[in-house]
Amino acid sequence: MTCPAHLIRTGGDRIGLFVLDGLGGLPHPDHGKTELEAATTPNLDELAGRSSLGRVQLLPPGLTPGSGPGHLSLFGIDPLQLEFGRGLLEALGSDYALEPGQIAARGNFCTVDGNGLVQDRRAGRPSDAECRRLCARVMEEVSVDGVTIELIPGKQHRFTWIITAQDLGAKVNDNDPQVSGKGALPFRGQDPVSETTAAIATEWLEKAKQCLGEEEVANSALLRGFSTKPHVPGFAERFHLHAAALAVYPMYRGVARLVGMQPRDAGAGLEDQVAAVKSAIAEDYDFIFVHHKDPDTAGHSGDFAAKVVAIEAFDRALPGFLESGLDVIAITGDHSTPAVMKEHSWHPVPLLVHSKRALPNLESTFGERACLHGDIGTIRGPELMPLLLAHADRLDKFGA
Amino acid sequence: MTCPAHLIRTGGDRIGLFVLDGLGGLPHPDHGKTELEAATTPNLDELAGRSSLGRVQLLPPGLTPGSGPGHLSLFGIDPLQLEFGRGLLEALGSDYALEPGQIAARGNFCTVDGNGLVQDRRAGRPSDAECRRLCARVMEEVSVDGVTIELIPGKQHRFTWIITAQDLGAKVNDNDPQVSGKGALPFRGQDPVSETTAAIATEWLEKAKQCLGEEEVANSALLRGFSTKPHVPGFAERFHLHAAALAVYPMYRGVARLVGMQPRDAGAGLEDQVAAVKSAIAEDYDFIFVHHKDPDTAGHSGDFAAKVVAIEAFDRALPGFLESGLDVIAITGDHSTPAVMKEHSWHPVPLLVHSKRALPNLESTFGERACLHGDIGTIRGPELMPLLLAHADRLDKFGA
Repeated sequence: MTCPAHLIRTGGDRIGLFVLDGLGGLPHPDHGKTELEAATTPNLDELAGRSSLGRVQLLPPGLTPGSGPGHLSLFGIDPLQLEFGRGLLEALGSDYALEPGQIAARGNFCTVDGNGLVQDRRAGRPSDAECRRLCARVMEEVSVDGVTIELIPGKQHRFTWIITAQDLGAKVNDNDPQVSGKGALPFRGQDPVSETTAAIATEWLEKAKQCLGEEEVANSALLRGFSTKPHVPGFAERFHLHAAALAVYPMYRGVARLVGMQPRDAGAGLEDQVAAVKSAIAEDYDFIFVHHKDPDTAGHSGDFAAKVVAIEAFDRALPGFLESGLDVIAITGDHSTPAVMKEHSWHPVPLLVHSKRALPNLESTFGERACLHGDIGTIRGPELMPLLLAHADRLDKFGA
Repeated sequence: MTCPAHLIRTGGDRIGLFVLDGLGGLPHPDHGKTELEAATTPNLDELAGRSSLGRVQLLPPGLTPGSGPGHLSLFGIDPLQLEFGRGLLEALGSDYALEPGQIAARGNFCTVDGNGLVQDRRAGRPSDAECRRLCARVMEEVSVDGVTIELIPGKQHRFTWIITAQDLGAKVNDNDPQVSGKGALPFRGQDPVSETTAAIATEWLEKAKQCLGEEEVANSALLRGFSTKPHVPGFAERFHLHAAALAVYPMYRGVARLVGMQPRDAGAGLEDQVAAVKSAIAEDYDFIFVHHKDPDTAGHSGDFAAKVVAIEAFDRALPGFLESGLDVIAITGDHSTPAVMKEHSWHPVPLLVHSKRALPNLESTFGERACLHGDIGTIRGPELMPLLLAHADRLDKFGA
C-alpha cells in the first residue's frame, strides 16, 4: 500500500504520463555518454530546469522487467504481487480485452509424428500469413458445444486461444512437453471448474488435429499458460482518474486496458499523438498515457545512434505536448534498454515530473546521471502514481 | 522475496565479492575526511570511475550489525528473519560446522561460592592457554552416556559447548543468572526433545563441577544460547553458484559455510588471496568471497591511521584481483567501524560494483560521500546478491 485510498480526491489537475519505452541506457564505450545524455534535447533540458527529477526502479534491484511488468509497475501495481499467466499477456499483446468468464492460453502450431510425438514445437515457424490462414480455418471448422472458442493469430507459429463459457477454471496444465520427441501431455484440471476447461481443451484439440491433418505446415497445437483476467482495480476506482491510453502497439494498449484506461486512436507518429492528447483533453480525460516505442526498438537492435534519434524525435514533439493543456507532465521509461546490451536491463530509468509544485535543481539537464541528483530520488514504480497525484493536487493530507 | 527463484540462470559471469571488514567510517575531527576518503587509493579510485557506486545498508536504519549478521545480509539473508542462537554463532566463530542433530551453546567458565552463588561469571578472565587446558580436562574426565560432548576453547573464559545425539531440542533456557551473587538457574526444556537436552546439560554440569572442584581458576560453567543449525538454503540451491570463501578468521569461514560456500585456504595476506582467487577460478568456482579483516581491527582500536593503512594495503592488491579472471567485482563492507567510535556502527557501507554493465559517475572516487551519488543508490543487504547476479548476466527478464 503506497497510498491510502481515502486520501485520493475526485478532482484536480490533468496528468500526462509519457513513457519512452526502454529509455534508460548505458555509456557508449567511445565517449562515455548514455543515449539520453548524448542526444541533443534542448526542450527536455529546458523542462528539466523547471521540474523535479529522479529515477524509477520498476522492480527490486537487479530484476529486469519485461514490457508488461514495467508498465504495470508505472501504473501502480507491483508486478511481483500480481499473478498473471502467459495467456493473459498474449491476449493483452493482441489488444484483446480478456473479460471475467474467459480463459486465455498461449498457442503454438506444431507438428507431431505418426506416434503422436512432437516433432517441431513451432511447426517450422510459418509465415504470419500462414498463421492467420490456419487460425481462420480452425475457427471455421472446429467447435465445442456450448462454448465460444477464438484463435487470434500472432507472429509465425503463435496464436492466442480464448474460450468463453460459464464456470471455467484456469488451473490447467500446459500440454507442451517443452522438448521435441515427446508426446503432448493430457490436459488435467486441478479443481472441478478447471476440469471443465481441461475437457473443453481436450475435445477442441482432438477436433483441431483432425482439421489440421490435411495441412502440410502444422498438424497439431500446444497450449500453455491458461489464465483468467486477474482482478485489477481500475484507474477510476483506485485513483479517481478518467484515463486514456495513446499507444500504437497492442501490448501497451492491452496493459493499459487491464488497469482501466481507455485505449484511443493515437495515429502513427508523435505529431498524431500531440493531436490525440488535445482531443482527449477536450473529452475530459484527466490522465493520459502516451507511449513512444522507438527508443526500445533501437536499443534492442544495439543501434546507439538510432536510439539517440528516437529520443531527439520526442524532444522535438515536446513543445506540442507542453501546449496541449496538461498540468502535470511525467516523462520516464518502462525499463532500460541500453544499446550496448541489446536487451532490457535492471537499471533504474530517468524520471522528470513537471508541475507548478516541482522542486528543480539549478542548471540541470535530463539524463541518467543528472537524475541521480534530483528532488525525487530513486522511487519504486508503484510509488510514482501517488507522487503524480500529489503534483496534480489530487491527494489530501494524511492526518490533521 | 527480492528475486523470484525461477529467474535465476545456471550459467553466467564470475563474481568476486570483496568484504573489507568494518569499511565504513566517519570524518576525522582534524581534517573532516573518513578513513576511506583519507586513504590514498589510486586503484580503487580508477576502478570507481568505471563502476556503479552506491551504499549497502545491512540492517534497518539505526541498527548496528555484528559480523555474523552483517555477512549474512550481504549473502542474501535477512538476519532479522533468521533465528539463530548465540551458540551457533560461537560454533561458527570456532570454524565448527554445526550439523543437524547437534546442539551448540556458548559456555563461560565461572566461579561459584560455597552456597552455590555465582561469584565471577568470567572466572577472572583466565588466559587462552588456561581455557584450553580447562576444556581439555573436562572433555577428558566428563562424559554423559550415549552423548558426545565437545568443548572448543575460545578467548579467555569462553568456550563453545557442542553435544551430538539423537532427538535433541534446543529450547533450553540459559543457566547464566547474568549477575553475580545469584545461583545458576536450573536447565529446563520447553518440549520433550528439549527436556532431553536439559537433562544432559544438567548431568554434564554436575560432573564438570566435580571435575573442576580441584581447580583454582574456575569451579563451574555457565551455558547460554542453546541452538541448532538453522536451515539456510545454500548458494548452489538459491543462486546456482558454486561459491568459495577466502577468509582467514574462523567466524567468517563459519558464516560462509552456513550459506553453502566452500571455505578454502586463503593464506595469510592479500597476495596469498590473489593467488587463492586464481586457483579457485581454475577450479571452476563462479562466486568467490574474499574477506579482509584489518580495517575492522584498526577501527575497533580507534586507530584512524592504521585503518587508512589497512585500506591502502587492499588498494595495492587490487590490480592483482582485477587480473585474476573475475567478471563482476563488488567491493563493500559488512558494517562500518569508524575509528572515532571504536566499535561497529549502523552507517551504510560504501559499495562499488564493477562489470561491463555498470553505469559509472564521471570523475568519481571510492568513498562514503562519493558513493552517495552513485547509480545503485542505497540498497538493503539482501538486495545485493540479485544485483550482482544481474551484472553477471545470471537473471532472466521478469515477464514478457
